[in-house]
Amino acid sequence: MEKPILVFQTDFTYKEGAVCAMYGVVKSVDRSLEIIDGTHEIPHFDTWSASYRLSQSMEFWPKGTIFISIVDPGVGTARKACIARTKDGYYVVTPDNGSLSHVKYNVGIEEVREIDERVNRLQTTLGTSVFHGRDLFSYCAARLASGIITYEQVGPAYPVEEIKVHRITEGTFSGSRAEGMMEIDDPNFGNLWSNIRSELLLAHGISYGDLVQVTIHHKNETVYQENVPFVRTFGNVKQGETLLYTNELMKASMAVCLGDFKGKYNLGYGEDWTITIEKSN
Amino acid sequence: MEKPILVFQTDFTYKEGAVCAMYGVVKSVDRSLEIIDGTHEIPHFDTWSASYRLSQSMEFWPKGTIFISIVDPGVGTARKACIARTKDGYYVVTPDNGSLSHVKYNVGIEEVREIDERVNRLQTTLGTSVFHGRDLFSYCAARLASGIITYEQVGPAYPVEEIKVHRITEGTFSGSRAEGMMEIDDPNFGNLWSNIRSELLLAHGISYGDLVQVTIHHKNETVYQENVPFVRTFGNVKQGETLLYTNELMKASMAVCLGDFKGKYNLGYGEDWTITIEKSN
Amino acid sequence: MEKPILVFQTDFTYKEGAVCAMYGVVKSVDRSLEIIDGTHEIPHFDTWSASYRLSQSMEFWPKGTIFISIVDPGVGTARKACIARTKDGYYVVTPDNGSLSHVKYNVGIEEVREIDERVNRLQTTLGTSVFHGRDLFSYCAARLASGIITYEQVGPAYPVEEIKVHRITEGTFSGSRAEGMMEIDDPNFGNLWSNIRSELLLAHGISYGDLVQVTIHHKNETVYQENVPFVRTFGNVKQGETLLYTNELMKASMAVCLGDFKGKYNLGYGEDWTITIEKSN
Repeated sequence: MEKPILVFQTDFTYKEGAVCAMYGVVKSVDRSLEIIDGTHEIPHFDTWSASYRLSQSMEFWPKGTIFISIVDPGVGTARKACIARTKDGYYVVTPDNGSLSHVKYNVGIEEVREIDERVNRLQTTLGTSVFHGRDLFSYCAARLASGIITYEQVGPAYPVEEIKVHRITEGTFSGSRAEGMMEIDDPNFGNLWSNIRSELLLAHGISYGDLVQVTIHHKNETVYQENVPFVRTFGNVKQGETLLYTNELMKASMAVCLGDFKGKYNLGYGEDWTITIEKSN
Repeated sequence: MEKPILVFQTDFTYKEGAVCAMYGVVKSVDRSLEIIDGTHEIPHFDTWSASYRLSQSMEFWPKGTIFISIVDPGVGTARKACIARTKDGYYVVTPDNGSLSHVKYNVGIEEVREIDERVNRLQTTLGTSVFHGRDLFSYCAARLASGIITYEQVGPAYPVEEIKVHRITEGTFSGSRAEGMMEIDDPNFGNLWSNIRSELLLAHGISYGDLVQVTIHHKNETVYQENVPFVRTFGNVKQGETLLYTNELMKASMAVCLGDFKGKYNLGYGEDWTITIEKSN
Repeated sequence: MEKPILVFQTDFTYKEGAVCAMYGVVKSVDRSLEIIDGTHEIPHFDTWSASYRLSQSMEFWPKGTIFISIVDPGVGTARKACIARTKDGYYVVTPDNGSLSHVKYNVGIEEVREIDERVNRLQTTLGTSVFHGRDLFSYCAARLASGIITYEQVGPAYPVEEIKVHRITEGTFSGSRAEGMMEIDDPNFGNLWSNIRSELLLAHGISYGDLVQVTIHHKNETVYQENVPFVRTFGNVKQGETLLYTNELMKASMAVCLGDFKGKYNLGYGEDWTITIEKSN
């Protein structure tokens, strides 16, 4: 059987030798393993983003792919190091610190096992506790991918209910308007993505081409309110115009055409940022 | 026959999950395909740079290599999605939006085909129009590389003359001076590259070691004029000194030794930036 | 025999086509060679950092791995282009400009050979002297990895003692205190790493949990002095607290928990930055 691909995401950047050391560990376990960069530019210590990014691209990969996610502000403390198996057949190697939230919410976790450090930790670096990405996660992931250990040999299973998660809500429609949260940004282009599925808008009589009133709250304060067109894509509006569009995950999202919506209005994402959408009068 | 390599360039950066999703699509089409990062740091929406970067490194790759270039400000609009075959045997998968300009000008396009979305689009994401990089370009490129489709099965051919191109001029020498344009920057080191081949200077009596007068115009305004040495490489001048040197594509280029020429004089590149070079008196 | 992996590190970034061109050259020499990004974000022209980063991750790679390090402020001048073989069985392809310092100091160089440009240089780009990364280092490394040339055929050997090196000192303990230098930063998190092995502290009666006085000098000036806890990892202190911890290479290192130590106190690394550590009263 073909060995699974290892896809890495971290908040390490490529500025120093950490990623290089991790990949060396993998190749020393099994030269034939295939490594792909997911990203090494997760915002520092941001387990919410780590969780979101895992969920964003996982479904496009072959079943069995092993994702290694290392955003680990609590490295060396009591937080568990684990490997989760999702209900749709992927593996995630990660500190159990909220990084599994979206995958658990959207797809479900079939089983989770704590990595047994006595067996699945690199033995040559026992004097340090600060780089589990190299010494524990990469090493154990490579052993699993290579077939040196089975999933059961990762370590003892623990209840899926004990996995640490961030609070995630569902985008809903009630009365004349949709309500949801600003779930994440597209940091490259300054777009903000809600968790409201566009088909929910379409099912409730809001059509492409309609003008909609979008209101964004930070905690209890209204920080943005405007009437904008609901369109399929950026090309449907003029440069500099704000739009509500359907993003690549088919969620209602805000952008300024060829501009930076998030920066222009100084907005953010996460549990404190909510959005409502309704047809303009 | 060995399957061609896929070389990607985009303006997506690695800050979010877009690149990861594209590569997952490729690996889901055919696990054995080889993916290489060209760059994901093309300036946003800059189809001129996309065009230049394609041309810059293509010749160093094995014949048959497939380049996927996704700088796509008009995603989801009427611009064509195409695969071009160059006269020297490479493939370019790209929106037809100017990204083929330099390859067409420098090497020539043998044939171009519009991607047939009915066949060569990922079917699971039909609700979105904003991520052709994942749903159309990566998917179709992987099918071509894998041999699932032939080049003819990409979609219908259209006339090469219809390919959208930026205006590119030739560096020339007349009378006592060379004239050309500032074609691109080296953003890492702040160098600016002209389109004047150094051998054109050498053929007209300007030799390494000579002092030359370099004048740069932005539109009709003279924005830089100095006498600088024409040298083979940076090590031939002192730190902080400005130089005209022969860049890696053998074109006359401007730099400050261990400095930032473009930033120091606030200069740019593209159709509006012209340069003249003549021997100093 | 399996062909060795090529691990690249440069100061080129991914902003332009240089890395892409180098990798194309490798694949044109031998399609089957495996290329891994070490990093392309070494600070510009910083041969000290290049030297340190090579040393940092080398030991985690399979023996025989070929590292290509191109931080080359003197490209095209008389500095040698070489391939060194380390005492523990790795190869480094690099300009001989200080980039071999740490590997030579920490592990030792078995043999060093100057690349013979007449044989091991790409012949299609002879008109340029500025991109040895592509034309000489990548090309020659690929030929070596592929088995087209033996190590002896790289070019003539020269005395290991002639290798250009930066001055490196040893972290020591005398009387009641440890003395060393700030060897490098972790630019991602703002940590500063000394060259003092934590086991040296532990062997002289400084234990995890102890309060220690840390003094940092820049040249002869005291630029930082504080009492901080000596701990295993970040999780042992509160957010914003400064700590002395054992880094991933088991050296005593300074950090602010979830903060930026280097930036907060405006500190640096290299030969001019020294540190002393002693138990607080």
